[in-house]
Amino acid sequence: MLADLAFTLESLRAAYARGITPEAVVEEAFRRLDALADPGIFLYEARHAALGEARALGTPDGRPLWGIPYAVKDNIDVALMPTTAACPDFIHVAEADAGAVARLRAAGAICLGKTNLDQFATGLVGVRTPYPVPRNAIDPALVPGGSSSGSAVAVARGLVAFALGTDTAGSGRVPAALNDIVGLKPTLGALSSTGMVPACRTLDTISIFAPSVAEAWELFELTAGYDPADPWSRPLPRRRLSPLPPAFEVVAPDAASLRTFGDTAQAAYFEETLERVAALGGQVRRVDFAPFYAVADMLYAGPWVAERLAAVGERFFDAPETLHPVTRAILAGGVKKSAVDAFRGLYRLQELRRRCAGVLGAASLVCVPTMPCFVTLAEIAADPIGPNARLGTYTNFVNLLDLCGIAVPTGPRGDGRPGSLTVLARAGEDARAAALARAIERGGTAEREESEGPGPDEIALAVCGAHMSGLPLNHELSARGGRFLASVRTAPCYRLYALPGGPPARPGLVRAHEGGAAIAVEVWALPRAAFGDFMAGVPAPLAIGTVTLEDGSMVKGFLCEPHALVGARDITGEGGWRAALAAAV
Amino acid sequence: MLADLAFTLESLRAAYARGITPEAVVEEAFRRLDALADPGIFLYEARHAALGEARALGTPDGRPLWGIPYAVKDNIDVALMPTTAACPDFIHVAEADAGAVARLRAAGAICLGKTNLDQFATGLVGVRTPYPVPRNAIDPALVPGGSSSGSAVAVARGLVAFALGTDTAGSGRVPAALNDIVGLKPTLGALSSTGMVPACRTLDTISIFAPSVAEAWELFELTAGYDPADPWSRPLPRRRLSPLPPAFEVVAPDAASLRTFGDTAQAAYFEETLERVAALGGQVRRVDFAPFYAVADMLYAGPWVAERLAAVGERFFDAPETLHPVTRAILAGGVKKSAVDAFRGLYRLQELRRRCAGVLGAASLVCVPTMPCFVTLAEIAADPIGPNARLGTYTNFVNLLDLCGIAVPTGPRGDGRPGSLTVLARAGEDARAAALARAIERGGTAEREESEGPGPDEIALAVCGAHMSGLPLNHELSARGGRFLASVRTAPCYRLYALPGGPPARPGLVRAHEGGAAIAVEVWALPRAAFGDFMAGVPAPLAIGTVTLEDGSMVKGFLCEPHALVGARDITGEGGWRAALAAAV
Repeated sequence: MLADLAFTLESLRAAYARGITPEAVVEEAFRRLDALADPGIFLYEARHAALGEARALGTPDGRPLWGIPYAVKDNIDVALMPTTAACPDFIHVAEADAGAVARLRAAGAICLGKTNLDQFATGLVGVRTPYPVPRNAIDPALVPGGSSSGSAVAVARGLVAFALGTDTAGSGRVPAALNDIVGLKPTLGALSSTGMVPACRTLDTISIFAPSVAEAWELFELTAGYDPADPWSRPLPRRRLSPLPPAFEVVAPDAASLRTFGDTAQAAYFEETLERVAALGGQVRRVDFAPFYAVADMLYAGPWVAERLAAVGERFFDAPETLHPVTRAILAGGVKKSAVDAFRGLYRLQELRRRCAGVLGAASLVCVPTMPCFVTLAEIAADPIGPNARLGTYTNFVNLLDLCGIAVPTGPRGDGRPGSLTVLARAGEDARAAALARAIERGGTAEREESEGPGPDEIALAVCGAHMSGLPLNHELSARGGRFLASVRTAPCYRLYALPGGPPARPGLVRAHEGGAAIAVEVWALPRAAFGDFMAGVPAPLAIGTVTLEDGSMVKGFLCEPHALVGARDITGEGGWRAALAAAV
Repeated sequence: MLADLAFTLESLRAAYARGITPEAVVEEAFRRLDALADPGIFLYEARHAALGEARALGTPDGRPLWGIPYAVKDNIDVALMPTTAACPDFIHVAEADAGAVARLRAAGAICLGKTNLDQFATGLVGVRTPYPVPRNAIDPALVPGGSSSGSAVAVARGLVAFALGTDTAGSGRVPAALNDIVGLKPTLGALSSTGMVPACRTLDTISIFAPSVAEAWELFELTAGYDPADPWSRPLPRRRLSPLPPAFEVVAPDAASLRTFGDTAQAAYFEETLERVAALGGQVRRVDFAPFYAVADMLYAGPWVAERLAAVGERFFDAPETLHPVTRAILAGGVKKSAVDAFRGLYRLQELRRRCAGVLGAASLVCVPTMPCFVTLAEIAADPIGPNARLGTYTNFVNLLDLCGIAVPTGPRGDGRPGSLTVLARAGEDARAAALARAIERGGTAEREESEGPGPDEIALAVCGAHMSGLPLNHELSARGGRFLASVRTAPCYRLYALPGGPPARPGLVRAHEGGAAIAVEVWALPRAAFGDFMAGVPAPLAIGTVTLEDGSMVKGFLCEPHALVGARDITGEGGWRAALAAAV
């Protein structure tokens, strides 16, 4: 019976509600692992400990991850388990949980073991390990992807409900794409990095693999949080996952600068995927991606390889034979870099950051293929460096630019290989990237989720004109952390007028003493602390008052002073500003 | 007559109002320079250009720095003047103004020339120059301080109204203390750094020397601003210089960790100064300053010296004879630093930043002596490194920790030497530091300034009813940090109505299409961050919009939806709510 149980959060919770025990689930997990006969996935199997923890859980206690089995990449400490970073000589038994693992343990999750990786998290292929290479979950001819190879395969094979990886330059996204699962790469500093073996400390983050965006997001919310013990931790605003607004701007590489290294199916599929993004309301702006590639190129050509050398430390010089030969060859690139080189690299990055920011403009999202092409085991055997470098085309720049992102399966390409889109957002805007990823996940039903109401730190605000999504002043909301809640109508007692002046053209909403109509508005949630800033920019004759919605509820919203409506054109009959704009064309 | 004219902004403006010409002022400036017979202050005297600019100014045109003479440190470009950075072989004629200089030129200021410095801004003493050393303006036995030696001395001698320096580790503060003037070190990225010869690009900022805090602040406001052409520029909130709040927390080194290198007068004087800070409302928390010293120590012991080497470039290897021998010796420390060292330095800094943040806690201000002790020319001749390093005790850590600060004269110490306090604040909080510096400047009268208009973190709000002082809802303003600004009247175009309902009884204000009257209102300043909370409690039919006051200015204020006025009693004739309440009794 358990053999048919999908290891998703939902089905596991349902199973526990039916009386299934965590012990049975853990036993089933290891039965699956044994049946798979892939010795490359786990570097350490914690059978005994996991079963003990499962038994100790007793009966369901309401904790959000009670009895949920998961795996941890073997460069992250789990108390009393060995950590190797895929370097056997590096082995040590962790005395304490990594910060992120401690949160998962507190939430009731059960760690089944430590997973394989490209040694010291240096690679995107998963074959740079002295241990057996995990088999790709989709096609055994393909590399499993790395560096978080074992974690991605474990999730894709249904051995665990989720897994922790790490991501310095794509290690949390490329293996997700290669195994057709979700890979969430958080904003740097969102998750505690204590207990993580560094690759490039200025760029590292723990990442999350899960079968779906909703699960990845829930796990992110449970794992993220400021950790004063971690110098790289950042206090970031907590954001809720919201529905996509009806319109939003997305940046994507233009056809001329898209790099697919001859994988024409990937290029065609990316165009299809962008059409789906557009169908969801995305205003896709295609740009020359050269500045982003320039950033990506710096990762190994620039000084950051010296961070990897710093992480590996004296071992490189004193015991080079303990290192994987490819890893050793890459680290060697850091030896000759001087501190002058390092600072010059930082200067160059600063300039490129400014250029990339200019390309992004007001857009809050970037869409890229997670990978430019696929890589086979045969290809990487023939050339251990080149194909690996190609895999980083759309990932290497992300951490250097302090972006966050999520790789999401978008359904099979025409040739049956898994399609994956990565949605990127600015630091702290993880929820925004996840919202688009969720909408487009596996075929993208485009059905809109019900909106959650405003949180206690937010104010719901009805906007009826240029602040609506896709219109010229929407950025005044989005840039202040505003999130779209719903498209609704007012109670049938308002009138709408086209005000003179502009640009931007603006309407004025006024409650009628008698008569009136229901007017289309969007309700947004704005952080309370940002409301004053927003208010300061509201010009006469507009005001913020109380607007009654069609369902009788009341929210704050834009109103117009009556003296300004004298002589203004009454557009109540259009039913709303968007319709009035369309009618005017 | 002009010989008695103080070169302050106030007296120069008064002189220009009396008909004195900029040409006469420029001539007087150079007469003073000639009389001083100190060839070390200016490396380039722009007599001809400055006189030409002065003549071209014509008559006063309202620009804020019209005809104000100033000087520029010779590592900042002024168009058509040579830049040397005190390295004669480095000389080149600038094609364009540095970003900060361009703003000053646009404001009408006249640059009199380029000032001496420790070569490539590496030093705090002012003697590391192949040119004559400027004489200290207070005591010729003392070093002038550096690296902005000439700029500080030029201001202290009254040759110019202000001067630009640079500050990487104290170059904008130490010479201010040594010459008894104000040195404002802005938040990194607040002023454009284009056209500045870098010292450590990640730590450099242009700085401002002036006779007083008020002048330094005015110049900061005129010079600061986001510059998209400068990758290091940051968009920072504009803040106004406000009166000190009645109480504020300040962190200062405790007696055990205070370092004065045997200058007991300095230690005693610092205690006196802190007592004055306390008398102004400062809650002074004394802390172990070890983490800050640890940061300061990293500046030359860590990798940042390689930034200086990167800035000097191939000259160090190809033409070492063109460098000052002490500068060359310091730069040599950067040669052997590897990229691994550089990143390890950044990691260590990140950890120390966290420690220092923990020490600061919620405090927004830090007070330190600008220097631990004085340094004489004889001492630096005997040991060119040690005394220089000591001068950086309270400055070296500031830029590494991304703090801003201002060095302010606090009156003579017991032994007659100039006292100087540096007030530090977090990035972007320059105004906070300046507010305390202004209050304690030269004796600190502690008298409180008249309330100014709303600061950039506040919103002015006109209230016309129950929120006025003494009325039932006034606590909604005062409890949120609101402060009373003024009792005024609206422009004569409003009508006031007594609304049904209550308690409390409330009026509704509406702008009339025609007619109307001036209505009495109170204007309060409410913190922006608290505005959302306040707004959430504003019920229909009231709204917050824009109210035009009698003087034509516009502020946010209470308005009323027109549908609610139907049938309400028009009390416009009473002139205001307070009068209407009185009439009703």
